[in-house]
Amino acid sequence: MYPKSLQKLIDDFRMLPGVGEKTAERYALCMLDLDQESVEQFASHLLQMKQNIKQCRVCGNITEQDVCDFCSDENRDTSVICVVQQPKDIFAIEKTGFNGMYHVLNGAISTTKGILPDDINIQSLFSRLDSVKEVIIATNPTLDGETTALYLSKVLKDYPISVTRLAHGLPMGSNLDYADELTLIKAMEGRIKQ
Amino acid sequence: MYPKSLQKLIDDFRMLPGVGEKTAERYALCMLDLDQESVEQFASHLLQMKQNIKQCRVCGNITEQDVCDFCSDENRDTSVICVVQQPKDIFAIEKTGFNGMYHVLNGAISTTKGILPDDINIQSLFSRLDSVKEVIIATNPTLDGETTALYLSKVLKDYPISVTRLAHGLPMGSNLDYADELTLIKAMEGRIKQ
Repeated sequence: MYPKSLQKLIDDFRMLPGVGEKTAERYALCMLDLDQESVEQFASHLLQMKQNIKQCRVCGNITEQDVCDFCSDENRDTSVICVVQQPKDIFAIEKTGFNGMYHVLNGAISTTKGILPDDINIQSLFSRLDSVKEVIIATNPTLDGETTALYLSKVLKDYPISVTRLAHGLPMGSNLDYADELTLIKAMEGRIKQ
Repeated sequence: MYPKSLQKLIDDFRMLPGVGEKTAERYALCMLDLDQESVEQFASHLLQMKQNIKQCRVCGNITEQDVCDFCSDENRDTSVICVVQQPKDIFAIEKTGFNGMYHVLNGAISTTKGILPDDINIQSLFSRLDSVKEVIIATNPTLDGETTALYLSKVLKDYPISVTRLAHGLPMGSNLDYADELTLIKAMEGRIKQ
């Protein structure tokens, strides 16, 4: 129904996470209303991003250089490595004031999707463990994240390193009666003496 | 915090309607995960759309030709014109089974935004009125849409044409107690004898 070149763009927008037909239409029509220059910039930014962004040789984070900003920052504590699933998790951890190093798995071990330890960025972690005192496992509290955490803590047992995990429990500002069973069980298990 | 070329893309995605920082991040990271070919196609579709789409010479709808599909379709009833604000409104009206012609204003008269009748696609409507029996005003039931409808029905009084408007009232499947006051007033005003 829409002109072909608009329909193609609508289909492209539908590739974005959580975007259905209606939203994709709105996005494409918004692009149609934008001035020529902005649309050209959008298109060239897409290509530039794809061209310039690669994985950090050390930690697997996204970067435009060979080594990412975190790995090349000399003011960070190299004795602690925080292991996360995705680059964007780093920005969440940064907000906590953490000042150590990161390691990005770029995925998680998944029995259902058939993703094995060798399919994600785990091997390069082991080559970074000299003079490291602590590895903090900060994978997501999901089935795949838990599987990955379990695997990591098992393999890292062979190293003279303290392996820790982020605490699971009630999120701050939440109500006890809204918490799901699994979260409550984790909160009970992890209870702390006052 | 993000690499520059990724941040630029995030900023671009924020131009889309209803997209905030978090969503723009998700969209940009999704683009990063896509294969090279898809991203290149996305970029070229953006440029093609901007290049190919123009306004129909007759009705103001978006089209890749000189005259849009609706205006060049000989099976449609040329004696009725439905006036809408935006091209996408056409696709909504089409679902009702309407088989007449359209006229797209590409905007609405707005006293607050200073948009006057001459700023939208109204003039070309008058040149289409020969042998037209009915003009259906299908502007949005908003302040600007109502203003535009009022203006149109006033000006069209000078023509030997039946001017009608879409009915306002309770949306189907809704609850009476959830309806706002204005909608209820319109529903009362427009009540139909059974």
